[in-house]
Amino acid sequence: MPDPAQLAERASFRAWTRETARFADTDRLGHVNNAVFATFCESGRVSFLYDASKPLAPPGAVFVIARLALDFRAELHWRDQVDIGTAVLAMRRRSFTLGQGLFCRDACVAAAESVMVLMDEATRRAIELPDRLRADLAAYLAPGAT
Amino acid sequence: MPDPAQLAERASFRAWTRETARFADTDRLGHVNNAVFATFCESGRVSFLYDASKPLAPPGAVFVIARLALDFRAELHWRDQVDIGTAVLAMRRRSFTLGQGLFCRDACVAAAESVMVLMDEATRRAIELPDRLRADLAAYLAPGAT
Amino acid sequence: MPDPAQLAERASFRAWTRETARFADTDRLGHVNNAVFATFCESGRVSFLYDASKPLAPPGAVFVIARLALDFRAELHWRDQVDIGTAVLAMRRRSFTLGQGLFCRDACVAAAESVMVLMDEATRRAIELPDRLRADLAAYLAPGAT
Amino acid sequence: MPDPAQLAERASFRAWTRETARFADTDRLGHVNNAVFATFCESGRVSFLYDASKPLAPPGAVFVIARLALDFRAELHWRDQVDIGTAVLAMRRRSFTLGQGLFCRDACVAAAESVMVLMDEATRRAIELPDRLRADLAAYLAPGAT
Repeated sequence: MPDPAQLAERASFRAWTRETARFADTDRLGHVNNAVFATFCESGRVSFLYDASKPLAPPGAVFVIARLALDFRAELHWRDQVDIGTAVLAMRRRSFTLGQGLFCRDACVAAAESVMVLMDEATRRAIELPDRLRADLAAYLAPGAT
Repeated sequence: MPDPAQLAERASFRAWTRETARFADTDRLGHVNNAVFATFCESGRVSFLYDASKPLAPPGAVFVIARLALDFRAELHWRDQVDIGTAVLAMRRRSFTLGQGLFCRDACVAAAESVMVLMDEATRRAIELPDRLRADLAAYLAPGAT
Repeated sequence: MPDPAQLAERASFRAWTRETARFADTDRLGHVNNAVFATFCESGRVSFLYDASKPLAPPGAVFVIARLALDFRAELHWRDQVDIGTAVLAMRRRSFTLGQGLFCRDACVAAAESVMVLMDEATRRAIELPDRLRADLAAYLAPGAT
Repeated sequence: MPDPAQLAERASFRAWTRETARFADTDRLGHVNNAVFATFCESGRVSFLYDASKPLAPPGAVFVIARLALDFRAELHWRDQVDIGTAVLAMRRRSFTLGQGLFCRDACVAAAESVMVLMDEATRRAIELPDRLRADLAAYLAPGAT
């Protein structure tokens, strides 16, 4: 597993998605609601996993999130543009871990790790990551990841 | 069409749904975001139309919303309980209009009208309201509605 | 009041905001949830009313939405880019009406009218639109609007 | 720190909040969107921390979430009722950890840990947990927590 501090560096990521904080994303504290950070992680994740030009899931299989760990580092506000970087931190037999950094201007506002399981759509059971998927994910391995 | 003022009276409704305003429903103005009122209307609408014990849609058909008109009368805040009343205001050949009142404590905080079209799932075209549906909807006609 | 059909034409608008439909904006019907259309209208509205470089509200006053009427014309899906055009349809003593068109690719997917009231922040009462605001709004009058 | 398996047991919790999954909480996969689980955790958290009859925050201070770790165990669907239990897992000098279990019928559908920091509203800096807060939190310590 790479150094967690890497998730705070833009240079750690090759896959990027951009979101803009909506007025409706704010809450009564005046800033972007913390659950919206989970939505931004999802936006980056699905954009990475289901890229229309190169979907990663094998036919008949889907990715299921088993765990999301989110470190909040700074507030976001209405109209802020957020760049979401996604990388692969680790691969296991039937699952892998994505690392994400959320950046606004010069700051990392959040870092996240997501454990993704590959599931057979018909049986709803976890299945082994095929070699093709392993090779595709390997292209996005963070420095130091295995 | 009944008097619009009827939507501000609890007595106009027989079908009810309850929602509670979440912290995440608020926005930076400190109150419940106005789009959440549309969500509350939807909660009342789908609860009325797709009641698990007596779904109104004929087999192979779904209801599609064509128009939503929402009058905002008062603010809602975190933790407020909202009672959503739903009634039928009018029936036409392929569509009908629902009237809704949103109530918090003693006040009507919003009133809404929704035009719903019955659509064939396969052809994605509007179809005539069958007699059975007309009879079911008639049981929820607001006083003065036709 | 201008012809309602104008809201379906991109040429009717000079003020624009862009949103992208998030994965989280979809619902179990597979398309973008209808309440998100109200959020998109809000995005266009607040972007128009509270433009950071030229806010329209006089000091000590805010805009309050009194009515939202939304015509749904087509579905939106995950990743769709939506251009939201905003124009002024009518001005009254203490309120005005905004017209909006939501466009995705070549189609108008929704049209909306919003009645906005100018409210004194301290007294929470409606106040007259000052001349400066009238002049600012006039620059965005839709063809045929008064 | 108590055994993580405790978060899957209703008996571990004394503070409870209930949410119902809205139609708008679902996504195109047909189930409740995963970010809504973070919203449900927030509902339980703010209900626990800002109980109107006994707010835990000292005057002039607020709680800020520094980390949220969410384990997804089962899907939720439209209309599901979710009971959110909240307990205190650990207290440190300027922060504490909440443990949460989300339950639907007989199943634990998610477990979460949240690190909360006590922040001075004026200086925006972390401050020490006062004795009164420590005593209040201690009443909700999970078995085995310190």
